[in-house]
Order: sequence, then structure tokens, then C-alpha cells
Amino acid sequence: MPFRATVLTLYPEMFPGHLGLSLAGKALERGQWSMEAVQIRDYAEDKHRTVDDTPAGGGAGMVLKPDVLARAIDHVSTDDDRPRLLMTPRGRPLTQARVRELASGPGAVIVCGRFEGVDQRVIDARRLEEISIGDYILSGGEPAALVLLDAVVRILPGVMGNDLSGVHESFEGGLLEHPHYTRPQVFEGQEIPAVLTSGNHGAVARWREAEARRLTEERRPDLLKQASTQPVKK
Amino acid sequence: MPFRATVLTLYPEMFPGHLGLSLAGKALERGQWSMEAVQIRDYAEDKHRTVDDTPAGGGAGMVLKPDVLARAIDHVSTDDDRPRLLMTPRGRPLTQARVRELASGPGAVIVCGRFEGVDQRVIDARRLEEISIGDYILSGGEPAALVLLDAVVRILPGVMGNDLSGVHESFEGGLLEHPHYTRPQVFEGQEIPAVLTSGNHGAVARWREAEARRLTEERRPDLLKQASTQPVKK
Repeated sequence: MPFRATVLTLYPEMFPGHLGLSLAGKALERGQWSMEAVQIRDYAEDKHRTVDDTPAGGGAGMVLKPDVLARAIDHVSTDDDRPRLLMTPRGRPLTQARVRELASGPGAVIVCGRFEGVDQRVIDARRLEEISIGDYILSGGEPAALVLLDAVVRILPGVMGNDLSGVHESFEGGLLEHPHYTRPQVFEGQEIPAVLTSGNHGAVARWREAEARRLTEERRPDLLKQASTQPVKK
Repeated sequence: MPFRATVLTLYPEMFPGHLGLSLAGKALERGQWSMEAVQIRDYAEDKHRTVDDTPAGGGAGMVLKPDVLARAIDHVSTDDDRPRLLMTPRGRPLTQARVRELASGPGAVIVCGRFEGVDQRVIDARRLEEISIGDYILSGGEPAALVLLDAVVRILPGVMGNDLSGVHESFEGGLLEHPHYTRPQVFEGQEIPAVLTSGNHGAVARWREAEARRLTEERRPDLLKQASTQPVKK
């Protein structure tokens, strides 16, 4: 069964968005993955189709109602072993390791928060895994869901063809990627570093490793700390 | 002058994407911000409109050519004091503080990487600020650019109306947000925590602060370390 994504949102028209284009879009057409966007509002039961209410304890903003969201979740994920994700800045940070796990599974049910937040009781009762794509605030969970799905879909079998094979990537081995160069040999007076055109493969590999390490030390010392305390996964 | 975004991409059809909908889309229509997506390929000068070439030193993937990208950048940002950003997992992590800075400025020129990477010489020569939205790999810079713009646009004056005023958010004061609750009072046998319906505003505030701290300790001890060594911005 190909990877199957169901997105619960107040803006189903945002999907598949950019995932309907480029390689992800072609793979979607070929059926190598599938996605469905479900309107949460369809599970409201009053005549105004209310999905949110004021926060208990006061304060600004509105909170997504637990009963409405629970009905929507139950409707799309009965007899379903897909993980249920809630995109929120309160979540655990998304990592490439979690992306790989998701890509090797049956799919995901993804809840997009809006307004101030989601009632905690439905998060608990439906065991939603809260995931954050980064330390900034978005208008809602939709852009985050699109990013998560983009990361997952690109590593599904067959989606990127041969493009991915053997490519070294940032976070592999806990380091950022080394700098890249291509033709022309001279660009605005700057040459490609001589070692890269030397034909000495060992020297190229050593230079790239050293550059990756230098860049990571400079920009992301936190990654080096993780790498030194955790075994590198191959 | 409203915030002005220019995105350089091989997939201009991905823009404005979800930014053309919802509150961001309405603000775009009202002219409270503007965006333009520019096809990098239009700046290739050979008859095949080549934008990439094989990496110097060997390896898989393709590298975006410095000369083509430099022409595209120069075309859209002459006499221009907008920051030039390159969306890449090698970049410094995007923070809400950087989002606020960008939102208070004139706009941004955003380069979306694709393929294996971008020639380092054009990054240096055009002083591109490398920004990462998180520790995972995307199909290209486009989903990242959409996320960055979503974060910026939502805090531009007038975009969200009153929705934003007084709202406490994750990362404010260095903590994740406390849990939320709303009606119904009882959901699947679970009541709203009594303190939130007590009417005691002091007790509510203390409970929320304690919950925010507990959640941050549990999920993001790294944020607490930052908060304790940096003065909280108000």
C-alpha cells in the first residue's frame, strides 16, 4: 500500500498545493502516494457549523473544539494504524530521522491547528503526536503539514528516481553539507578550489569532510554535540 | 512601502500557493504585502536554458550555476536594500526573532535552492544569508520560502486584524505555550481543569506559567537553557 496522507484542516483548498507540482505531483498522479484533505467544519453539528470557542480561563484567540475535532479524526481513522500528527509550535521538533520513519510507514493523519490552539483533551484522548517544524509561529498548521509531507514524499520509493542515490545530505552523520561548486571554472574572478579539480578522490573527500565540519562548528555547534554523544546511524 | 517579496525559483507556479488564500491572501489582494516569483531559468543564456551542472570534485546530484543565479539576483535587486536569503538546510535556523526583523524591514529576495545545492561563489559574491527552517531535507527551497513568508506575513500590520493582539505564543519569553481548553465543559468524561473556570485570574496565570514551564522542560530543555542565559525581550 502506498503512503496515504489524510489532512484535517479548515483550509482544504490549500492542499495538495506545491505537492501537486514537480516530482511530488507526478508521483501523486502515478499513485505512488495519495492525499486527501478533509474539512474539519463538516463535523460541526450546530447550524452555524462552529469549530472554535473562547479559551477557558480567558485570554485572546479562539480554541478548536474537542468534540468537533474528535468526530473528524474518528471519521478518517477508524481501523487505522497510521500515526496521528498535530502540527504545532509546542510539539517536538521534526527531524530527518522521524521523516524516514514516517516514510517507511503506512501514511499519516495530520491535524492542522488554527486559532490560538487545540483543546488539550482531544490531543490526549486521540493520542495526537505534536510536531513542530521549527521555532517560529505560522498562520496555522497547513504550511507545516505541506513541509512535513514534502520531506516524506521525496524519499518514498520511486519518487525522485535516481536523483537521490548516493547523494550526501545535510544531517547525514550529524554534519551540515560541504560547499558545492560547478562550472564555470572562474566566476567573477573566483576559481573553483583547486583540490576539487585535482582528480585526487581521497583529497576531495578529506576536503569535503573538513569543510562540513568547519561549517557545522561555525553554524550549528549543537549538531556536533549530538553527533559526539550519539552513534551515527548508517 | 509594504513588505515586498521576490522569490527566485525554478517553480514559480508554486507561488503564492497557500499565501494566496486565507488572511495572507486577503492581505495580498489589499496590497498590504506583495510578492513576485521569478523563473531562474529565464536568466540562462544558452539555447538549452541550462541552470545546473555536475559538481566539481564529482558525486551525485547537480549544482545550480553561479553565473545564471547571479544574473537573476542582479536583475531583481539592483538599488535594493532588501536582505537576500537562500533557503537551505545548511543555513542558520530560522527563529521568531529573525521573522520579526524581516517583517519590520522592506521585504526580502528569497532564493530557492534545488538539486544538490548552489555554487558557493554566488552565495559569497551576492552575500546570500543561508536560512534553514528545520533539521530535515525538502525537495527544494520552495516549501521553506512559503513557510518563511507565512510567518512574516501574519505579523505584518493589519494582516490578522485584532486576532493577534494580546495573544501569548510559543517562544514568547522562551517557553512553549500552555495547554488550551474550551467548551464543552465535559468532553468524553474529562473536565476542563477547575482552576480555569474558577474566575481567579491570578491562579489562572500561575497555572498557565507552570504548565508552560513543565511542557518546555519535558519537550524542549534547550529552550530553557537559552532563556536562562539571555534576557527576555518584551
